[in-house]
Amino acid sequence: MSKYQHIKQAAYEANMQLPKLGLVLFTFGNVSAADRDLGVFAIKPSGVPYEDLSPEKMVIVDFEGVTIEGDLRPSSDTQTHAVLYKHWPNIGGIVHTHSTYGTAWAQSQRCIPIFGTTHADHLTADIPCAPPMDDKMIEGDYEYQTGFQIMDHFAAEGLDYNEVEMVLVGNHAPFTWGKTPHKAVYNSAVLEAVAQMAYLTEQINDQAPRLKDSLIKKHFERKHGPNSYYGQ
Amino acid sequence: MSKYQHIKQAAYEANMQLPKLGLVLFTFGNVSAADRDLGVFAIKPSGVPYEDLSPEKMVIVDFEGVTIEGDLRPSSDTQTHAVLYKHWPNIGGIVHTHSTYGTAWAQSQRCIPIFGTTHADHLTADIPCAPPMDDKMIEGDYEYQTGFQIMDHFAAEGLDYNEVEMVLVGNHAPFTWGKTPHKAVYNSAVLEAVAQMAYLTEQINDQAPRLKDSLIKKHFERKHGPNSYYGQ
Amino acid sequence: MSKYQHIKQAAYEANMQLPKLGLVLFTFGNVSAADRDLGVFAIKPSGVPYEDLSPEKMVIVDFEGVTIEGDLRPSSDTQTHAVLYKHWPNIGGIVHTHSTYGTAWAQSQRCIPIFGTTHADHLTADIPCAPPMDDKMIEGDYEYQTGFQIMDHFAAEGLDYNEVEMVLVGNHAPFTWGKTPHKAVYNSAVLEAVAQMAYLTEQINDQAPRLKDSLIKKHFERKHGPNSYYGQ
Amino acid sequence: MSKYQHIKQAAYEANMQLPKLGLVLFTFGNVSAADRDLGVFAIKPSGVPYEDLSPEKMVIVDFEGVTIEGDLRPSSDTQTHAVLYKHWPNIGGIVHTHSTYGTAWAQSQRCIPIFGTTHADHLTADIPCAPPMDDKMIEGDYEYQTGFQIMDHFAAEGLDYNEVEMVLVGNHAPFTWGKTPHKAVYNSAVLEAVAQMAYLTEQINDQAPRLKDSLIKKHFERKHGPNSYYGQ
Repeated sequence: MSKYQHIKQAAYEANMQLPKLGLVLFTFGNVSAADRDLGVFAIKPSGVPYEDLSPEKMVIVDFEGVTIEGDLRPSSDTQTHAVLYKHWPNIGGIVHTHSTYGTAWAQSQRCIPIFGTTHADHLTADIPCAPPMDDKMIEGDYEYQTGFQIMDHFAAEGLDYNEVEMVLVGNHAPFTWGKTPHKAVYNSAVLEAVAQMAYLTEQINDQAPRLKDSLIKKHFERKHGPNSYYGQ
Repeated sequence: MSKYQHIKQAAYEANMQLPKLGLVLFTFGNVSAADRDLGVFAIKPSGVPYEDLSPEKMVIVDFEGVTIEGDLRPSSDTQTHAVLYKHWPNIGGIVHTHSTYGTAWAQSQRCIPIFGTTHADHLTADIPCAPPMDDKMIEGDYEYQTGFQIMDHFAAEGLDYNEVEMVLVGNHAPFTWGKTPHKAVYNSAVLEAVAQMAYLTEQINDQAPRLKDSLIKKHFERKHGPNSYYGQ
Repeated sequence: MSKYQHIKQAAYEANMQLPKLGLVLFTFGNVSAADRDLGVFAIKPSGVPYEDLSPEKMVIVDFEGVTIEGDLRPSSDTQTHAVLYKHWPNIGGIVHTHSTYGTAWAQSQRCIPIFGTTHADHLTADIPCAPPMDDKMIEGDYEYQTGFQIMDHFAAEGLDYNEVEMVLVGNHAPFTWGKTPHKAVYNSAVLEAVAQMAYLTEQINDQAPRLKDSLIKKHFERKHGPNSYYGQ
Repeated sequence: MSKYQHIKQAAYEANMQLPKLGLVLFTFGNVSAADRDLGVFAIKPSGVPYEDLSPEKMVIVDFEGVTIEGDLRPSSDTQTHAVLYKHWPNIGGIVHTHSTYGTAWAQSQRCIPIFGTTHADHLTADIPCAPPMDDKMIEGDYEYQTGFQIMDHFAAEGLDYNEVEMVLVGNHAPFTWGKTPHKAVYNSAVLEAVAQMAYLTEQINDQAPRLKDSLIKKHFERKHGPNSYYGQ
């Protein structure tokens, strides 16, 4: 048995959550699961339908993006995953989808404004939208550069990837992450729900104000602060 | 067997209706079931996924918000439930969700206008939207104050909780209630359906008029008046 | 066995199609099935959940609206059905729902414009929207008057109920009919699909033109003209 | 056994994908599967519900539109399929649906702008919208002319059917094709997803720019260029 079996299993299970949660059509998404001690991650093979997946088909890749184990070609977004794992040491799982509402906001090249407590329960900032890459980056190693585009945007906006576990890549689609692949998938579903609510909020009231700071702070601390009292 | 078994069972069954009716993602909702003779209610434990729930996991809390029985921490919204049970003596069940359309209206900080008979079959007023709390209330015991925010708004608007069994809390999400937890869940689903229809109505005709008084009166009396003739 | 068993069975089966087609929430809809020789129709009992229905629970009513057989109270919309059966001799089934998009158009008090061939395959006119009743009619026998409101609108607009098998009642919701209850249910689903498409069409292009006459004529004749060539 | 059994089976399986993917209501769609050596295609019979289909019920038609084998009348859109097979030699399957968002764009008589990489992964152009036919074409052999309307539009716009495997017919609905019926069905689902995202994109930002050329090129080449690296 592969010494990577545990992350293959974790990546498999997390990938299978995507169609169940309505976040992917066909193969338009992928999840990876990292083992930081081993310095590798398991990721979905490219273009394989979810119903044909198995833990054995997951591909093992290191943080430089080099395939270590596996018969299949890894997801075309693998270099983006590798870059984020390499530079953001607390991440254990990454998800990429083309979920409907999240992708629509990304195509609109707008951040998702924080309009309510559903959003604030998860992050205190607008969901950031990294601008499309410049042409030089696109012509280079595109997926590799996508990782830097995300990181550069977080640096420029003063965002902490430990607090803001999601991003829209302009003209493209969402990426989310977390301490575990399960948490990263959870964040993808939250992003999609918040994206739909924010869209509807603006349709219902085009002057809808952002959530006020005191409520942002309160709701986030309910779940995440030192005195958090949500969950068990 | 616990002497609270009947409300644990009722709360469990009502909670399990929420995902079935498409009203919750993950754990974003909760139902409680009260026994007025015993002066307590059973409520969902905090942050526990619906598929892991059982009647035994429900937490028993009194109307002051003090936990009476149960190994798990009760829903983070428990104090809101307690306040409403304490002050509104005819309520037997309360539901809180972040359902998509209801939450979008709450985030828009608008009441849901009464546009048709689907709405009027259930209440004769717009679905009220309580304004966001002031910062002092937020910094205090937030969920406890949410209960008062709802009651204050009903008092200010001259609304009767026996007639209007639902409210939006501005920037947050809907709460509904009823004589039984089953009725409270029913009201949550009605609110969501009415919220979607009202959104679409304004998109189709931004001059759509509110329902006229004679129709409001007629439809409500079909189901609720002394000469009601809906149902068995 | 009741001599009305065949229409009880037909009404039961047609009613059960409504939740399956996503056209009703809870009990917000009803179907009836007529036997013109016997001069009666079978209709859903009022307020009974679909999962509790059985053919035996259907109520038999004559075209004057008088209950002939059945232990339960018939649908609160029974008088509307009775009026339409009495005056429109070719109808064998009637459906009333509060389906989401159809109801939104009814609440908007607008006809649904004929924008494409999906619509024209079924009728050559806009889907009519009868205006809300005047207060005197509402205060009278409301459901009985609803039937006349529909018929009066068809007369005023020069519409033929054999060609246009559906209507929106302003501020209320859709009614559809057909030679059989099955066809009436089919028409309810068509109305809902067309209503959603028309809504989206106007959102995408607020100057979208109505379908031109030559295409209306062609598509309708494909399915309904003397030289029809759709179906077997 | 029919010598056409293989394409009957292929057409059957592809047709059954349409309701599964949520692309059709009732019988509002059809798929055909061609055998270029035999010079024929198998197509859904007209007006037969999907649940009643079987491979044996598929109708065999040649590229002149003449029925070769089968007891049932072929789809009313058969002549459109025949024209496209006859003139576009690389096509092995064709799909026609009235899917909700694709049809709404067709009714709006607008091309679907290329707003993001979901679109660019499949084609580098806007999804074209052929204008409604002139009255003379409509009055003639309508479905036959629909095929020419599509081809004429591709010629006028300089589009290559090998690169752009989908079209909206103005006021009508989408057609898609591909080397296989399976690929044609895949394209129908992609079109519907892209149509919904493009609609939402414009709602969220009515100034949303089209995808820039460098990104269009990059994403398309990932899947389709000589150095493609998507899939296995």
